[in-house]
Amino acid sequence: MRAVDIIIRKRDGAELSAGEIDFLVQGITDGTVPDYQIAAWAMAVLWRGMTIRETAQLTRAMAESGASLDAEAWAPGAVDKHSTGGVGDKTTLVVEPIVAACGLPVMKMSGRGLGISGGTIDKWESIPGFRTNLTREEILRQLKEIGMVACAQTAELAPADGKLYALRDVTGTIPSVPLIASSIMSKKIATGARAIVLDVKAGTGAFMGTVAEAATLAQWMVRIGKRAGRRTVALVSGMFQPLGFAVGNALEVREAMAALRGEGPADLREHCLTIAGYMLHLGGRTRNPRLGRALAAEKLADGTAFAKFRALIRAQGGDERICDDPSLLPSAPCRGILTAGKSGYLAEAHAGKIGLASVRLGAGRAKKGDSIDPAVGIVLRGKVGDPVRKGDPLCEVHAATEKALAQGLSELEDAFVIKRGKVKPLPLFYKSITK
Amino acid sequence: MRAVDIIIRKRDGAELSAGEIDFLVQGITDGTVPDYQIAAWAMAVLWRGMTIRETAQLTRAMAESGASLDAEAWAPGAVDKHSTGGVGDKTTLVVEPIVAACGLPVMKMSGRGLGISGGTIDKWESIPGFRTNLTREEILRQLKEIGMVACAQTAELAPADGKLYALRDVTGTIPSVPLIASSIMSKKIATGARAIVLDVKAGTGAFMGTVAEAATLAQWMVRIGKRAGRRTVALVSGMFQPLGFAVGNALEVREAMAALRGEGPADLREHCLTIAGYMLHLGGRTRNPRLGRALAAEKLADGTAFAKFRALIRAQGGDERICDDPSLLPSAPCRGILTAGKSGYLAEAHAGKIGLASVRLGAGRAKKGDSIDPAVGIVLRGKVGDPVRKGDPLCEVHAATEKALAQGLSELEDAFVIKRGKVKPLPLFYKSITK
Repeated sequence: MRAVDIIIRKRDGAELSAGEIDFLVQGITDGTVPDYQIAAWAMAVLWRGMTIRETAQLTRAMAESGASLDAEAWAPGAVDKHSTGGVGDKTTLVVEPIVAACGLPVMKMSGRGLGISGGTIDKWESIPGFRTNLTREEILRQLKEIGMVACAQTAELAPADGKLYALRDVTGTIPSVPLIASSIMSKKIATGARAIVLDVKAGTGAFMGTVAEAATLAQWMVRIGKRAGRRTVALVSGMFQPLGFAVGNALEVREAMAALRGEGPADLREHCLTIAGYMLHLGGRTRNPRLGRALAAEKLADGTAFAKFRALIRAQGGDERICDDPSLLPSAPCRGILTAGKSGYLAEAHAGKIGLASVRLGAGRAKKGDSIDPAVGIVLRGKVGDPVRKGDPLCEVHAATEKALAQGLSELEDAFVIKRGKVKPLPLFYKSITK
Repeated sequence: MRAVDIIIRKRDGAELSAGEIDFLVQGITDGTVPDYQIAAWAMAVLWRGMTIRETAQLTRAMAESGASLDAEAWAPGAVDKHSTGGVGDKTTLVVEPIVAACGLPVMKMSGRGLGISGGTIDKWESIPGFRTNLTREEILRQLKEIGMVACAQTAELAPADGKLYALRDVTGTIPSVPLIASSIMSKKIATGARAIVLDVKAGTGAFMGTVAEAATLAQWMVRIGKRAGRRTVALVSGMFQPLGFAVGNALEVREAMAALRGEGPADLREHCLTIAGYMLHLGGRTRNPRLGRALAAEKLADGTAFAKFRALIRAQGGDERICDDPSLLPSAPCRGILTAGKSGYLAEAHAGKIGLASVRLGAGRAKKGDSIDPAVGIVLRGKVGDPVRKGDPLCEVHAATEKALAQGLSELEDAFVIKRGKVKPLPLFYKSITK
């Protein structure tokens, strides 16, 4: 088998065989197929697409390119959750303790933020002392002991995906639905969890700009998951405005804690309970997602979810005093309020623009490897549909310097639109995809 | 400027700017743009195509990526000729001496054969002692002294093209008309000759299978040439059957010498006179190609063309006694005749199949770097349209071993088709393209 012949077949629109795909993934993993051939193949995939059969095979081969975590053996019934990323998306910080509090282990690995997409790992790390680079053994032990873990993806997990993604990043071959879907799912499958809930976001603050695009990606991932023998459900959720109010790492931890106490923004609570409900259902704890949601709400109300959150911080070396005194979290020295220029209803709180402003403030990374400031960010004061009076605060900006604060306030002016007539609130979820 | 942004623009169908193309070619030349980015870009070009403006810029940038030969300064008025390659295409061996005999210097560099396409350099090298790896200084000195040279392309000529072609060869990105056209023309432009005649072949023995495809490639090359300030004409010629009778290196030299004496196959003579006519016209020797053809015929008839051929062999260290005694050329030990199985008219002498059989005999290379046998090959005994009687010889096979001979004879059976009814001869040329 020669890589060039495989490239030519894909270039000419053929469906590759399982053997051909395995050959490429093996070549990526051990370096026997040079990067220039992988790059040409990836561009041919953008051009010609892949069938679900090819995509599932690519996913499986990448999942098997390294050591599986085999979560199922250590924590039977463990369920995984994935978000495609957005602005203010602190769902994992809330959902993981809830589900673990229901006795269902959560096998979840997270990433760092890039661009306007925040990263769960960055959020956890804003807690003083919190360690996220756990070894495989630490991950599995903790999963067994407290039923949850907040860790970065290990290097040995699906290494072919890591290499392929890095190459796609520099060759203009990111935006392919089959390649995106297989990249995400290869890591999910490699963890070994048998149930996966996918939160696929659509909007200006998400990778997929429209609900239709997000639904397509969701469908591919669900199909891949099913072909790999995973119970998989995807929810298409809105990311046209940020989730909750807080955008920025420590600010989001604070908001997540409020949600875990049964407080905080209503949309965040509802979003987290829904996701948790699906996880509990897929993990076999309840007969349907609605009952899962009810069970999750119970664990919020009785304080066990918050106790799980505290246990997680303790297990990973974080300063658990933040649970009682959130002021121990990093906080920014400069704060300022952006106010409404007119009265009416909030018609837009543009997630993309707010995300970009938060990156400029230092809460996110413009490019990989950039350092971030855990303290800075933006806290909204309302959601789309809310009535607004001239002079009301639209958001508070938390900045490292007065200059950054002024720049942030000025940039954010463009992110909010107020209309005279009534505006409907935005839906939280657009659809659930189960096949 | 970042290579990834250029790839993305091409991937999305944009026209690249001159600066972007120069950036890529500079990156190919000095290695600052890695192969994987060039490969992804090349595949995006296959997908999205290039405009003539982009293609001309790519050509110019590649032509300027190394030292120009500046033939014009050394041999004013020098004309170049290029064939896209075929089976039995010994045109250069005949045309170069004719045109030089008319006082017009010919600045022609040639390549080695690959696959069914024979290489002029391989043909010259079948002459004992003939040296083709001349230095830049030797080339220019000889061009000045005898007005012609038979040399391989030097490494410093359009190095970006060499690197890009090698990368395209292993990434499935060869079949793009703009890339093929710019690859050929970059070398033509780098030699510095101001007039270029292109012989673009169409048929089973050529890179372009149909006249329409060949005409498209021809048109691109003519446009590129004109944009680079070269007087350029392309002739689309047939390669459905071999050119002349002989296929195989020494066998073709022998046939070329016959043509230079005014003998040999009629189609070869006509083909060469036509090409020479266009060269003489484009080089300013005659008012039109028809008068160029007449002048060329004169130089064949009066022996000056043959004398030029002899002078070339002498200048490059070859054994010029072959001119008087062709039996001094390498000859194969085993010969056999394939005869017609029925009477009628020769309807097909499939150039592709005959070329493939000649490669198997050892006359050509299955892959780069393979060694070849200068003596072996195939000599046809008729052309399409000729009447054939059962038992008549169709071709003679010259092989290195009895086994190879038997295999060659058996393979060739499939290459000839005889029909009962009259068959028209195939056209030599299909069209000339001047803009």
